[in-house]
Amino acid sequence: MKNHGEVVVIAGNSNQPLVEKICKILGIEQSACEVKQFSDGEISIDIMDSVRGRDVFVIQPTSGPVNDHLMELLILIDALKRASAGRINAVVPYYGYARQDRKVRAREPITAKLVANLMTVSGADRVICMDLHAGQIQGYFDIPVDHLTAVPYLAKYFKEHIDTSNIVAVSPDLGGVTRTRKFAEEINGAPIAIIEKRRPKANENVVMNVIGSIEGKDCILVDDIIDTAGTVCKAADALKKYGAKKVYGCATHGVLSGPAIERIDNSVMERFVITDTIDLPAEKHIDKIDIVSVAPILASAIMRVNTDRSISKIFEEV
Amino acid sequence: MKNHGEVVVIAGNSNQPLVEKICKILGIEQSACEVKQFSDGEISIDIMDSVRGRDVFVIQPTSGPVNDHLMELLILIDALKRASAGRINAVVPYYGYARQDRKVRAREPITAKLVANLMTVSGADRVICMDLHAGQIQGYFDIPVDHLTAVPYLAKYFKEHIDTSNIVAVSPDLGGVTRTRKFAEEINGAPIAIIEKRRPKANENVVMNVIGSIEGKDCILVDDIIDTAGTVCKAADALKKYGAKKVYGCATHGVLSGPAIERIDNSVMERFVITDTIDLPAEKHIDKIDIVSVAPILASAIMRVNTDRSISKIFEEV
Amino acid sequence: MKNHGEVVVIAGNSNQPLVEKICKILGIEQSACEVKQFSDGEISIDIMDSVRGRDVFVIQPTSGPVNDHLMELLILIDALKRASAGRINAVVPYYGYARQDRKVRAREPITAKLVANLMTVSGADRVICMDLHAGQIQGYFDIPVDHLTAVPYLAKYFKEHIDTSNIVAVSPDLGGVTRTRKFAEEINGAPIAIIEKRRPKANENVVMNVIGSIEGKDCILVDDIIDTAGTVCKAADALKKYGAKKVYGCATHGVLSGPAIERIDNSVMERFVITDTIDLPAEKHIDKIDIVSVAPILASAIMRVNTDRSISKIFEEV
Amino acid sequence: MKNHGEVVVIAGNSNQPLVEKICKILGIEQSACEVKQFSDGEISIDIMDSVRGRDVFVIQPTSGPVNDHLMELLILIDALKRASAGRINAVVPYYGYARQDRKVRAREPITAKLVANLMTVSGADRVICMDLHAGQIQGYFDIPVDHLTAVPYLAKYFKEHIDTSNIVAVSPDLGGVTRTRKFAEEINGAPIAIIEKRRPKANENVVMNVIGSIEGKDCILVDDIIDTAGTVCKAADALKKYGAKKVYGCATHGVLSGPAIERIDNSVMERFVITDTIDLPAEKHIDKIDIVSVAPILASAIMRVNTDRSISKIFEEV
Amino acid sequence: MKNHGEVVVIAGNSNQPLVEKICKILGIEQSACEVKQFSDGEISIDIMDSVRGRDVFVIQPTSGPVNDHLMELLILIDALKRASAGRINAVVPYYGYARQDRKVRAREPITAKLVANLMTVSGADRVICMDLHAGQIQGYFDIPVDHLTAVPYLAKYFKEHIDTSNIVAVSPDLGGVTRTRKFAEEINGAPIAIIEKRRPKANENVVMNVIGSIEGKDCILVDDIIDTAGTVCKAADALKKYGAKKVYGCATHGVLSGPAIERIDNSVMERFVITDTIDLPAEKHIDKIDIVSVAPILASAIMRVNTDRSISKIFEEV
Amino acid sequence: MKNHGEVVVIAGNSNQPLVEKICKILGIEQSACEVKQFSDGEISIDIMDSVRGRDVFVIQPTSGPVNDHLMELLILIDALKRASAGRINAVVPYYGYARQDRKVRAREPITAKLVANLMTVSGADRVICMDLHAGQIQGYFDIPVDHLTAVPYLAKYFKEHIDTSNIVAVSPDLGGVTRTRKFAEEINGAPIAIIEKRRPKANENVVMNVIGSIEGKDCILVDDIIDTAGTVCKAADALKKYGAKKVYGCATHGVLSGPAIERIDNSVMERFVITDTIDLPAEKHIDKIDIVSVAPILASAIMRVNTDRSISKIFEEV
Repeated sequence: MKNHGEVVVIAGNSNQPLVEKICKILGIEQSACEVKQFSDGEISIDIMDSVRGRDVFVIQPTSGPVNDHLMELLILIDALKRASAGRINAVVPYYGYARQDRKVRAREPITAKLVANLMTVSGADRVICMDLHAGQIQGYFDIPVDHLTAVPYLAKYFKEHIDTSNIVAVSPDLGGVTRTRKFAEEINGAPIAIIEKRRPKANENVVMNVIGSIEGKDCILVDDIIDTAGTVCKAADALKKYGAKKVYGCATHGVLSGPAIERIDNSVMERFVITDTIDLPAEKHIDKIDIVSVAPILASAIMRVNTDRSISKIFEEV
Repeated sequence: MKNHGEVVVIAGNSNQPLVEKICKILGIEQSACEVKQFSDGEISIDIMDSVRGRDVFVIQPTSGPVNDHLMELLILIDALKRASAGRINAVVPYYGYARQDRKVRAREPITAKLVANLMTVSGADRVICMDLHAGQIQGYFDIPVDHLTAVPYLAKYFKEHIDTSNIVAVSPDLGGVTRTRKFAEEINGAPIAIIEKRRPKANENVVMNVIGSIEGKDCILVDDIIDTAGTVCKAADALKKYGAKKVYGCATHGVLSGPAIERIDNSVMERFVITDTIDLPAEKHIDKIDIVSVAPILASAIMRVNTDRSISKIFEEV
Repeated sequence: MKNHGEVVVIAGNSNQPLVEKICKILGIEQSACEVKQFSDGEISIDIMDSVRGRDVFVIQPTSGPVNDHLMELLILIDALKRASAGRINAVVPYYGYARQDRKVRAREPITAKLVANLMTVSGADRVICMDLHAGQIQGYFDIPVDHLTAVPYLAKYFKEHIDTSNIVAVSPDLGGVTRTRKFAEEINGAPIAIIEKRRPKANENVVMNVIGSIEGKDCILVDDIIDTAGTVCKAADALKKYGAKKVYGCATHGVLSGPAIERIDNSVMERFVITDTIDLPAEKHIDKIDIVSVAPILASAIMRVNTDRSISKIFEEV
Repeated sequence: MKNHGEVVVIAGNSNQPLVEKICKILGIEQSACEVKQFSDGEISIDIMDSVRGRDVFVIQPTSGPVNDHLMELLILIDALKRASAGRINAVVPYYGYARQDRKVRAREPITAKLVANLMTVSGADRVICMDLHAGQIQGYFDIPVDHLTAVPYLAKYFKEHIDTSNIVAVSPDLGGVTRTRKFAEEINGAPIAIIEKRRPKANENVVMNVIGSIEGKDCILVDDIIDTAGTVCKAADALKKYGAKKVYGCATHGVLSGPAIERIDNSVMERFVITDTIDLPAEKHIDKIDIVSVAPILASAIMRVNTDRSISKIFEEV
Repeated sequence: MKNHGEVVVIAGNSNQPLVEKICKILGIEQSACEVKQFSDGEISIDIMDSVRGRDVFVIQPTSGPVNDHLMELLILIDALKRASAGRINAVVPYYGYARQDRKVRAREPITAKLVANLMTVSGADRVICMDLHAGQIQGYFDIPVDHLTAVPYLAKYFKEHIDTSNIVAVSPDLGGVTRTRKFAEEINGAPIAIIEKRRPKANENVVMNVIGSIEGKDCILVDDIIDTAGTVCKAADALKKYGAKKVYGCATHGVLSGPAIERIDNSVMERFVITDTIDLPAEKHIDKIDIVSVAPILASAIMRVNTDRSISKIFEEV
Repeated sequence: MKNHGEVVVIAGNSNQPLVEKICKILGIEQSACEVKQFSDGEISIDIMDSVRGRDVFVIQPTSGPVNDHLMELLILIDALKRASAGRINAVVPYYGYARQDRKVRAREPITAKLVANLMTVSGADRVICMDLHAGQIQGYFDIPVDHLTAVPYLAKYFKEHIDTSNIVAVSPDLGGVTRTRKFAEEINGAPIAIIEKRRPKANENVVMNVIGSIEGKDCILVDDIIDTAGTVCKAADALKKYGAKKVYGCATHGVLSGPAIERIDNSVMERFVITDTIDLPAEKHIDKIDIVSVAPILASAIMRVNTDRSISKIFEEV
């Protein structure tokens, strides 16, 4: 095997609890590094230990405030490159702007690609990410991307906590169908259904239409990102209306912006499961939301990347 | 407006009938250019007229034999670049390898991105393409991409040829749901359904499962690419089995490789509509297949690109 | 002359008043473009008119919140590139992160260079900026940079508003000496002095040391960026202490973060002059601060760039 | 020495017999990898073992069908890059399109350079090739190229099999003179002659003119590539006509397309010697053609590249 | 046609007489530009007029002192790029380092490619050059190269000045055979011969061997570059020795370094014809050397490039 | 730690004495390499030993003749890249063209950036340099730059050789103030003063104006580059005129072109101290000039870079 040098974990301010969990599993100290803002908002960084020839993993999900966290990442990469780091691995469990991945209307940007270009030009040698909004985003890079998934861990949660014998996995929109199917396969091949938003006639309100059979079933709504929670909560209502028994929800990335927490708390859903790719501030912790940690997946990926062992093996025995 | 120079249309061997239709609409002659193979299979090209400062449109869908047609395109672009063409617009109505757009298993290539890189490094200044397998492929380029669609034209065909008052638009697989929805919107907001392949138990055969209501309905299966026609014909069978009345099919790109023609001819589908992004050889023309030409769309795009007028206007009055 | 196409002015949210002044001078409408943030903080843009082949000037000083304003700029450039803009000119009168322009300590980033790389990779064809913290930043780009200066306009202000016969131009730190000299030359070749911060002995406080003669003189402190105003206000105190009569200050870029306004208001300075490269919110307007507009300089530069006329002529008759 | 990681040999479908010989010499197994075509002709690859951090040698001469073999190579490289291979060495013993290495007429491509760009953009770190049509092709790359030669091995064949005391080495065209001279030096410094094609007068046929003395001599025609064998067979006739005794031929690369085998079989040449850089299908094996294997040269190069030992030493004792 | 802007001719110090001739033909003034050296040898340039949007032709053969002339060219290109020139055309009639175009021994540079990379990275948009040592050097660029030739003009000289009915065109070495053949075709299809340097036995001197018939013939030695004139003068001796009547010589590029002038003056050659791609200093003008100007070819190329007319037409009626 | 391979030191002709001192400290032999000029001035290089996988340090200050020394460096880098060197570290203690680091007038090049681009495109992986004219030049590179300083060694010289209790450090111009301050800090925090050139009135001569108190003090003029020595000698006169006792001078880089030696010899300065970043030819050695060697700094940097140890530690105990 090649020697990529000693593992160094360095991080911005995006998700310190996750970084600490990863370091604990790896049995190493996080490298001393201060990332702060000057009075005018410019980011200042101070990397305290030498990184020459080290195999550096910069852990920084680009969750909100997305522009600040993204710039922290880019500036860290720039500093590491100029400081002769041996290899710079950007560990970005949540990839901000992933949903802006194609032009739907004229003159739109493709910000997900722009972000890939920004990381590459800054000097990243590799990206490690998780449950990208679209798998095609891997192709936005010409450097290696290790694309991890938390889906088996979300499925495992449900298998351990609820009776899954009568489950239908439901996609809350048309774009999430294949993701929902992957989740269903982890739940003993459960059937799937799809929610479609549709305006019955011009000037009428949008209604949530259910494609597939859910009557008398327990439903799990499956998404990659839960942001304002509007769609998923309305989808849960629709499921109930069309005869579902219990409704649950899950998503890898808990953005939970704006009214999201309130909506989930007031929703018909029994429980919503997310992971810790994004740090959920204390004031947003509610009983209905359970969090599965991805730290073991990321720690394993870091060890394997450093020692040139296959990443695909991580998921062999969830 | 800027002056991009005179329009020159040049083409490889991929789809001469389409090129001729486009030139006829544009009212210009195709530029004299010989693209042939030497005895050992290497491609030789001979561009007979000066292209200095011209606004050159190379029309070459990268349909099968895909590697030959792709290399013809790349070599033409290289020659045009070295011959000081003013602007090189690659017009690729069918984008070969588009389905290899992400890594599903370990150590897979992302050939759709590789192809984008090959076009760019050869010297293309712009790409004009149509109904890409995934919209994200636009982001594989950092040069401008004009992404056209034939979906309104396919829908228009059905509105003109069959009674569409009782239609359900059906996606033959989970990945095509949003495309099917877009088609349905053009058919007066018809409802949609989805076919899901699933193996009921280990060691049992895959079955086609219909998600959504189709009983007593006329169904149109909607796809972007029809290749061996295996999936779509089995989907049609399933629709019939679950009570559909008439079944039709359509797809923008008629690859129609291997047993496709025979399968369609023998299928329960009444009719299958494709466009001419790929040249269908005479021996593959059967009564059941109708072809809608995209030449008007492409000719309009070429005129608009040359004169800096908006492309999105093309679709305002289909 | 070449035809670069029609001028289009487009802008982010950084400095709308400046954009409006520029458009008024140019006699054109700002292009309709909505730049806003989604609930989770991601930037969304909507460019409403075609930009194909146009000569687009994106006016966006990257002042605070610097990361948001920078990302607005980059995303606008990405969208314009993909929308086939003829030429993309980034007009960045204030260049955020300019002070991070070299490594002073080990493992520092050179964020000013990183920012140049980000603009270039996004697709900018040219940058127009003003009074860069260091002239070398021009060399961070390999695309053309038009580097404008407001110094003659600041000098003109003082010549019109105060008696400049007894003036010394003073640099508030060692790094600003050449800038101060340039200013002094515009005030009839006034003499210069320099403030040096120095800690007389270990464990003693830093003191402001004046190099050069200022006793009995009126002093104008000259800077490029005024941020928290700490240095300049202490420098003014020192000048007074060492015998200066009246003390004034000026700077091109009024960042004015944190306690800046309060410090200036309470300072011994009679007046502080800045320009409008950065939009000063209404609550920060105080009597002591006067603002000179750079809109005429920028409008002239835009006209000249569009018509291929020399930029250096702008400053021939201030 | 640096550690480049374990040698992995992977191959497309271009020349499996050569790959097997190389692996046998290296004493390793070829890495499991399936490269096939889908029904529509698109290439599909499946690399079965992890290549992370390995020193991968992709052996793929780009012989006919040249476009398929080239795309196999590029797609393999793309997959290896995305799979985090440590170093990707493209071993291309026969370099397709090498003869299109400059513009002879207006508006020609330089396909040999295009191919170099394609390999580089795909992600190759190094190219190992053999007897390039023009040495300048090395300069088409900015990655390291190890340029091997089979000429001493071809010369050795003749020294071992025929009486070389009365030999003239003959170039079949004007472009191959220096190659012929290098071969002659390996045959004890034999004299050389040159065949020149010339049309004596307009409307007359091209004749083969011999420059240099060959009367009463045994001649060996020396070429790099033998394609349709037209020129070399006519050259052999001319040599006979001008008094040569026996005529032999040799070339590193046996393309042997179209009527080549028949022409050689019917020619006045006693024997034609080629190497196995290109796999000669069983039906093209004839008695007159002898094949020298380059597997020992390539295996030695692979070992030396992996262990950072000089390549130029390979040829010290042929 | 596109509008590339007004032609501007700018030049370094390499060949002012040629630049003046070109400008005279074009009927324009050379743009005011001072290129000089500081006391320490660093090059300083001062371009006095605006070049914004202009179509700039930088005329600078990279003849000796080659490194100074090359750096003048690169620095001029850098300045033009930063000054927003519309298009930068490097006119390099003599391409220094062209003979270092491949690796003959281990660890050699390919300086001709390096030079191409240097020109490209500096910002050249196009290169116009003449009689490159190897046609493959065109492929070292990915920007357009217009490759002109003076060979028809050299041939015309001989047709106008000597009796060419009994001529043999002779290549002074093995590498120049195709060039000699091209020249011969311009002299009514004259026959060719080749000089080969060879060491008959170890420890014996190199001798000049003539391949082909020259007895009783008038010979013209044809080369691209005449440098120290050693080879060509010895070749002339050999021709005489083997029975040639009169011997002439010609070459496009008269480097004429070291003892060249003396050797030619003392040689058996009647006359040596070169062009003015390189400025021959007054003290090197001798009666035996005649100079054909390439200014008309270059002026015509500049006009045609500016107006997008075909370059290949230049040579239709020499 | 990573293994970068064995250290190889290779050098052009710029500063052999320095290279030898470095090798002696490192305890290794300089790698055999011949760098010479052909008769026409083109550089020829011959690297005699294999460099595959080695960690190569090319030591070549780009002092005068700057263009020749720069091209030697670039050609060496090109050859090393093509010869598969493991890592190419350009050690450039004196960086020619560093003073052309920004545009002062219209249409100036930024040659310092151009040079950075040339080194990068040639294939350098890292640059090691010393006391750059402006720290921002580090940002001209996107490869790592190790920026060393000789200032503490110059200061140490004075502390060891003269009484520094009454010293003022003086900047000979406005641009060198921060450098002077850094030097002063190494001399027990000595005070600083600044020389300003100024033309009192139009048509009067430039005078040297002293800003700060130097009366009765010993002065050390501090510069980075001493070229023609005009400014520094006039500055010394001015210091004397305004009452300085003794005047000394120092600079890292002794270019000493034109009349420099004579001026220094005749100046009022007691002594001038430089380093050996540039080789001072024997005829320029005069008693007044003392030379401090930077070989220990460079040797230490090379060792540390090879073994991935921090460079900033070099200066901890000067």
